[in-house]
Amino acid sequence: MDLDLEFYRDLAQPATSKIVLLVMDGLGGLPMEPGGLTALEAAETPNLDALAREGICGLHEPIGPGVTPGSGPSHLALFGYDPLRHDVGRGALAALGVGFDLGPHDVAARGNFCTVDKDLIVLDRRAGRISTEQCAALCDLLREQVQLANVTCFIQPVRDYRFLLVLRGNGLSGDVEDTDPQMVGEQVLEPKASSSAGKRTARLVADFVRQAREALADRQPANMLLLRGFARKPNWPTIEDLYGVRGAAIAGYPMYRGLARLLGMDVLETGSEPAEEFGVLERHWADYDLFFVHVKPTDAAGEDGDWARKKERIAEVDALVPRLRALQPDVVVVTGDHSTPALLKAHSWHPVPVLLWSPHCRADDVERFGERACVHGALGPRFRAVDLMPLMLANGLRLAKFGA
Amino acid sequence: MDLDLEFYRDLAQPATSKIVLLVMDGLGGLPMEPGGLTALEAAETPNLDALAREGICGLHEPIGPGVTPGSGPSHLALFGYDPLRHDVGRGALAALGVGFDLGPHDVAARGNFCTVDKDLIVLDRRAGRISTEQCAALCDLLREQVQLANVTCFIQPVRDYRFLLVLRGNGLSGDVEDTDPQMVGEQVLEPKASSSAGKRTARLVADFVRQAREALADRQPANMLLLRGFARKPNWPTIEDLYGVRGAAIAGYPMYRGLARLLGMDVLETGSEPAEEFGVLERHWADYDLFFVHVKPTDAAGEDGDWARKKERIAEVDALVPRLRALQPDVVVVTGDHSTPALLKAHSWHPVPVLLWSPHCRADDVERFGERACVHGALGPRFRAVDLMPLMLANGLRLAKFGA
Repeated sequence: MDLDLEFYRDLAQPATSKIVLLVMDGLGGLPMEPGGLTALEAAETPNLDALAREGICGLHEPIGPGVTPGSGPSHLALFGYDPLRHDVGRGALAALGVGFDLGPHDVAARGNFCTVDKDLIVLDRRAGRISTEQCAALCDLLREQVQLANVTCFIQPVRDYRFLLVLRGNGLSGDVEDTDPQMVGEQVLEPKASSSAGKRTARLVADFVRQAREALADRQPANMLLLRGFARKPNWPTIEDLYGVRGAAIAGYPMYRGLARLLGMDVLETGSEPAEEFGVLERHWADYDLFFVHVKPTDAAGEDGDWARKKERIAEVDALVPRLRALQPDVVVVTGDHSTPALLKAHSWHPVPVLLWSPHCRADDVERFGERACVHGALGPRFRAVDLMPLMLANGLRLAKFGA
Repeated sequence: MDLDLEFYRDLAQPATSKIVLLVMDGLGGLPMEPGGLTALEAAETPNLDALAREGICGLHEPIGPGVTPGSGPSHLALFGYDPLRHDVGRGALAALGVGFDLGPHDVAARGNFCTVDKDLIVLDRRAGRISTEQCAALCDLLREQVQLANVTCFIQPVRDYRFLLVLRGNGLSGDVEDTDPQMVGEQVLEPKASSSAGKRTARLVADFVRQAREALADRQPANMLLLRGFARKPNWPTIEDLYGVRGAAIAGYPMYRGLARLLGMDVLETGSEPAEEFGVLERHWADYDLFFVHVKPTDAAGEDGDWARKKERIAEVDALVPRLRALQPDVVVVTGDHSTPALLKAHSWHPVPVLLWSPHCRADDVERFGERACVHGALGPRFRAVDLMPLMLANGLRLAKFGA
């Protein structure tokens, strides 16, 4: 049975319920030694445990068995968008990542500064890993010296040798192939159109690359650039179209703000500390139906391999939960977008703890919010992440009966 | 959501991890009386219990709910090949089953000796269930007396009245319909081509059948033969193509050796006793990434209705597990291909206990390896068998991140 977005769109009905999706990035973990506890299991979480006791628990698989997700696809899944069918082009994702407000007709691409020889053979795809400052200076240079007819070029540093290119104009297409040969010793590729729709854009990109090469000629080691992942902003239905909810994102990090905007949420001004985010939630409580609150420090601690800091960051969020409950929400979900075990210092494939609290949820026997405890919950130990949003809506009495 | 082989092929990344898949054929069972224990639950299995305690457990459904699998499809599922999309033609399966080394252009079919009247009306589809010895003598006779132009015929007894026919030559096709009408009282069918590609092969088969009829004319009750399931060897991607692992099969029985070869594994020489198989594993430990060790006696005991012997056979395998652990594998999976309860003396639809051990698996609360204990494991009580291979690869750190 395939319950896709259109299926739920047909069931969505109006309601006044308030739904909160609290995502602690990279929440799931591993013990640091055999038989030990995960950071979540070890953390002081009396308030999350109370939600777990009154609610239902489980573990979700963001993409599928064994798949380690990036944050983009895993967040799409949490909002009910199958990440295999909703592919954000890499250029568009890069634009989201730096908070660039991509227009509906813009074409974005990822860029690298690189080193080439006189025949355009790539000697170093990363130009000796130049610093972000050097990268910013080169972006300034390109902005001054490169001009395209009837098209505006936005050139923005990202980090180290990486930058973002956005072309804005009429009739542009993402159907342009990479100029990055991906291999040292290969020649920089011509930007070719991958469909007839892409021909004009490919010519513009070729012109851009030619001018950029001249501008960079004496800027060793960054004497050339490579472009890949040309893409327009995807044109997907918004969560308001689909579920009839006005959504607000409270997220300090650009990537999550961009993704939320892509799904039609309002993006509220906030810093990235959890306490500040909860303050924003309180101030805007009257204005929206669904709140997406994104907490980044849990993932950062996992990526750093810092189990103890991850534990503290989780406890810190737990201490904020009473402020959330004081708002009297109708549905609360607490989960992560993926696991980031400090043991692995990276995202991982492990299922992610999830709790769903609502007065209508039919509580299970789980007493604590932790990886092992959640195995025994009513949501099951390997719950598809895309099934979460329908359950949130149902618990908010926002889905009508199917059939008579 | 469709996570198919191509999806995982794109994620596969190189690693040095060693993965062992230990299949105890027909592992799952039933108690012999209500309230009793299964053979696995009753067996002395301290070493498997230790793996279960340190690992994650569950029960897998090889094909789907309520489906009793044959060994071919259920093994395909364990290797990640959806058995509904990967149909080994019955002739090819029969060839695998007797260990026939089917070439890429060969066409194989299942054969029955049967009894017909003078008008080719089938009187007995099994020729009075003649013995395997009689069958072998008739195969010798056909080999001597039947000749096809430019095509070699291999005719091999299987069991009782059944034999295997393989045609080897150029331009042969499996698109030939059965000559077996499947009903007593019906006439033997002409071999018809089911596509234009099958026309020449159908003519060759008709010639084979005509000559065979003459050779068998006075061999009552086996005075004719029936052919069905014409098929070539499927041309599937190998596990090396898909997952980037060099695989070795350690299996005493022809059918499993054939299946492993079909998936691109090297088939190592071994007898069929588990202790011998573990010796082969030790000797070849340096040579492969993935080892498929197949233990047959558990299934045979179940098929014989011998609960006590199945229990002993399981305990015998358990006693070998320390030898496996001494090799310091990175990932170990222990499971069956299907259930074979002694109570039913046959394969059954019951989910099959599975344990996955690795340093990164995030242990659950399961303390013992048995059917009821596994219900409470992190893999869940009705886990799709095709999801097992991706999890094995992930735990071996052999799958890259999906998306950014």
